[in-house]
Amino acid sequence: MRTAFYISDGTAITSEVFGHALLSLFPIQFNHKTIPFVETEEHAYKVLEKISESFQDSGERPLVFYTIVNIDVRKIIARSVGINYNFLDQFVAPVEKVLGVPSKPEKHRTHSIHEKTYDIRIDAVNYALANDDGSSVKDYASADIILVGVSRSGKTPTSLYLALQYGIKAANYPFTEEDMGDILKLPPALRRFKDKLFGLTIHPDRLHQIRSERRANSRYASLQQCRMELREVENLYRREKIPFLNSTKFSIEEISAKILAETGLQRKKY
Amino acid sequence: MRTAFYISDGTAITSEVFGHALLSLFPIQFNHKTIPFVETEEHAYKVLEKISESFQDSGERPLVFYTIVNIDVRKIIARSVGINYNFLDQFVAPVEKVLGVPSKPEKHRTHSIHEKTYDIRIDAVNYALANDDGSSVKDYASADIILVGVSRSGKTPTSLYLALQYGIKAANYPFTEEDMGDILKLPPALRRFKDKLFGLTIHPDRLHQIRSERRANSRYASLQQCRMELREVENLYRREKIPFLNSTKFSIEEISAKILAETGLQRKKY
Repeated sequence: MRTAFYISDGTAITSEVFGHALLSLFPIQFNHKTIPFVETEEHAYKVLEKISESFQDSGERPLVFYTIVNIDVRKIIARSVGINYNFLDQFVAPVEKVLGVPSKPEKHRTHSIHEKTYDIRIDAVNYALANDDGSSVKDYASADIILVGVSRSGKTPTSLYLALQYGIKAANYPFTEEDMGDILKLPPALRRFKDKLFGLTIHPDRLHQIRSERRANSRYASLQQCRMELREVENLYRREKIPFLNSTKFSIEEISAKILAETGLQRKKY
Repeated sequence: MRTAFYISDGTAITSEVFGHALLSLFPIQFNHKTIPFVETEEHAYKVLEKISESFQDSGERPLVFYTIVNIDVRKIIARSVGINYNFLDQFVAPVEKVLGVPSKPEKHRTHSIHEKTYDIRIDAVNYALANDDGSSVKDYASADIILVGVSRSGKTPTSLYLALQYGIKAANYPFTEEDMGDILKLPPALRRFKDKLFGLTIHPDRLHQIRSERRANSRYASLQQCRMELREVENLYRREKIPFLNSTKFSIEEISAKILAETGLQRKKY
């Protein structure tokens, strides 16, 4: 199998995202190898050896996606036996022309610490944990958004992703059977913050499958129960005009991006 | 201020990461605008209007980073008044030549759902939550890694990031004052899994600052207490040969990437 290397003097997240997006256009499997923090010439020479080994082992020249600020280190990687893509570089000159200023590369700028946004994210993670799963309903005034839905419809991972990636404070509240009498009504704690609510729903078969992995053959996991709960929450969303989306076919990234697009919430961190 | 648009028929994460990395090379502030899920010609025309408005408002042509699979939608965006970068596209032909196969773009491939890896991530998030902050020490056999350190040294956000981004099951255990008698010893629950331990430490001043935001003027937050606890854990790491890193100047992304690089842990999700 051909190897794709993602190399950087920082986290290599940019190389990974770019290279992976490019390679996903091809119906081929790759062996992915990330080598972050290549900051010295000595380390760069070791990387060259790894690329050579991979070539020898597989007989196929590896693809090498890299961004490195230090010119001496960069030059070493550029000499690898792989097919080397210094993919940001070729955009620099045209963008310099557009902006009318020279580029000023600094090491570790993209995914490194920014004092201000760092605290925002940690705060948001702590907020999501303290307000997970309806465990507390007292601090919804601080929420940027409150995700609602039945148990196992994707609220918790989405809350954490919104916190970690965007610095958004997301609480989440599960509608349980206790909330569902004859008809599911909005609990008072939520009604006060109705404009912050965002609903998740999911296909009954998928919910049944997920809950069965947790508690096989329980009433909680039964298809009948899943159908009933989902019918109630979807009726509630429509009746109360709560925006919602069906998470069945979407990744956490997609759910989060759709929530931002639909609510107009702004990310607090780039 | 000039605007940078990140546009896609998917989450637009790839456009954001690429465009942001490129623009971070320039000492200029931008107004960032992400428009995901542009899947129809109608939507694309609305996007064109937004780009035009931004040009009229600022007098500066926006930069537009986009990846769109549907050719009709893509052609519309390519006509925007901005400076348009279909940045993946120019790499496709050379990579086709290298690989000897034509590209086969599919919508939403990069950050969309992959049945197998989806469950791995959700499982990992649930694991991190159930094993956060030493709340349970019974399931360390299932851990891929156990982060240890004093309170507020970055264990929880790092555990969640490892779970969400990489599908890695990370438990975390806080050394508390109860663990520190005359000398901090490794609790038996941890000693059994010593090869899974990874230590975090932090500069005393920074820890003092973080703890003070939580409980101002407490003994817990005092510089003296912070110094004592950090000295104890660092001595323990050295004595027990537990790999560790100082998180003070690193982002969650950097800490996570360094942990992967140092331990050789493999991501379970791309």
